[in-house]
Amino acid sequence: MRINYEKWSLRKKYFWRRVWEDYEIGYLDRDLIPLIALLNRDRDIYTTSSCSGRIVVVDGVVPWIREEASVVFKSHTPATLSDVDFMYRTAPHKSYWLVVTGPILHFSTTSIKKAVGLLKKARTAGFKHSGIIHTSSTRGVFVELVTGIYMTQMIKTRELSIVSQRDIEEVLNIFNKALIEGKQRLQRLYEVFENSLPENPDLEVERELSSRRVEIATRKPIEVFYEICGDLCREFLRT
Amino acid sequence: MRINYEKWSLRKKYFWRRVWEDYEIGYLDRDLIPLIALLNRDRDIYTTSSCSGRIVVVDGVVPWIREEASVVFKSHTPATLSDVDFMYRTAPHKSYWLVVTGPILHFSTTSIKKAVGLLKKARTAGFKHSGIIHTSSTRGVFVELVTGIYMTQMIKTRELSIVSQRDIEEVLNIFNKALIEGKQRLQRLYEVFENSLPENPDLEVERELSSRRVEIATRKPIEVFYEICGDLCREFLRT
Repeated sequence: MRINYEKWSLRKKYFWRRVWEDYEIGYLDRDLIPLIALLNRDRDIYTTSSCSGRIVVVDGVVPWIREEASVVFKSHTPATLSDVDFMYRTAPHKSYWLVVTGPILHFSTTSIKKAVGLLKKARTAGFKHSGIIHTSSTRGVFVELVTGIYMTQMIKTRELSIVSQRDIEEVLNIFNKALIEGKQRLQRLYEVFENSLPENPDLEVERELSSRRVEIATRKPIEVFYEICGDLCREFLRT
Repeated sequence: MRINYEKWSLRKKYFWRRVWEDYEIGYLDRDLIPLIALLNRDRDIYTTSSCSGRIVVVDGVVPWIREEASVVFKSHTPATLSDVDFMYRTAPHKSYWLVVTGPILHFSTTSIKKAVGLLKKARTAGFKHSGIIHTSSTRGVFVELVTGIYMTQMIKTRELSIVSQRDIEEVLNIFNKALIEGKQRLQRLYEVFENSLPENPDLEVERELSSRRVEIATRKPIEVFYEICGDLCREFLRT
């Protein structure tokens, strides 16, 4: 498949602009910035929607998002007892599910070869459920990087309290540890990519990064994460 | 990337022989046979390890399989109360987790183009987390088809009973329904692929299928599934 590089580049410009719009309104997970900057500094890569890993509470018959399910709580740092306490004070429409998801990254490249090379590297960093999910001559070769970190726990139905308020701390503890494991994989991914990217620097992106002086883009993902969540994470690292 | 068709064909022969060895020792999920036969009837596809969807109990700190975790129960049909009752009579090494996983299919094709076409079709059948996971000139372009059907529930740690024996029926009911939803997606996948495969028939495979008279290969996956699990599934379909 031949990529229409001109059209592909227009899309890269569009998504690169979006990164900073999202960043400024606080929509972008801050601990993703170092990886997003690193990937986009390569002329043949642009990133789209990604997530650094999160804990959510879903209200639904099943824990995956559908029309009839909704996210009623969301956190990209460890959740506290008081964060999830609402489940014991309110009734769900369907059921409350606690869900932890590891990091997910999406990006487009200009060739299958490049995509396959990055996939191989990502796998060594623990992103074992990754693949090329889509190809298009104008949008490029799309890659999704996913870890196997994913757990759910049904907490309460309309009729039954499945996990008692006494036991939620233990469950939350395990989910928070899995969240942090996800953040550590993000760090490993950054280290693996840092050794080889950018292959061909994107001068426009490099220029913008230095003119914007985005200090955060030069840090390590795990440093940014610890900075965001502070004492809460240091506590988990000790246990 | 150029495929070495000669070496690729040798691998197809090897895996095709394995299908029937696995089938004969009862290692292959019987409700996978119709799809496996359909895919291999195409000259440019061979299947490798796949799963029709299952419920397992994992004993581990987290529910994904690692060195320190193990599968202590496994079923490709709905699990009954008496199947999982052992969790209340024995202590886990780490923790007991109930896990349901939708179907997962792996196959190799001889071109990116073919792989991308099949990916698009699979997506319409609800296999939304699918992708090209690996490419090699001798092994081919590897595709993994996965649904989003995946749930876990921690039942018991060494110290705590998180889900009481009174509530396990409700949890099991929801997990069994998710398992059946997975089997229905397998059926949809079969229907979608049946409309376009084989593109180029593999005469050797066609010949072997008719000489072996594998009646099951001519049935629909969902029929085979209902036949395997009998009354248990009919009961779930009514609720």
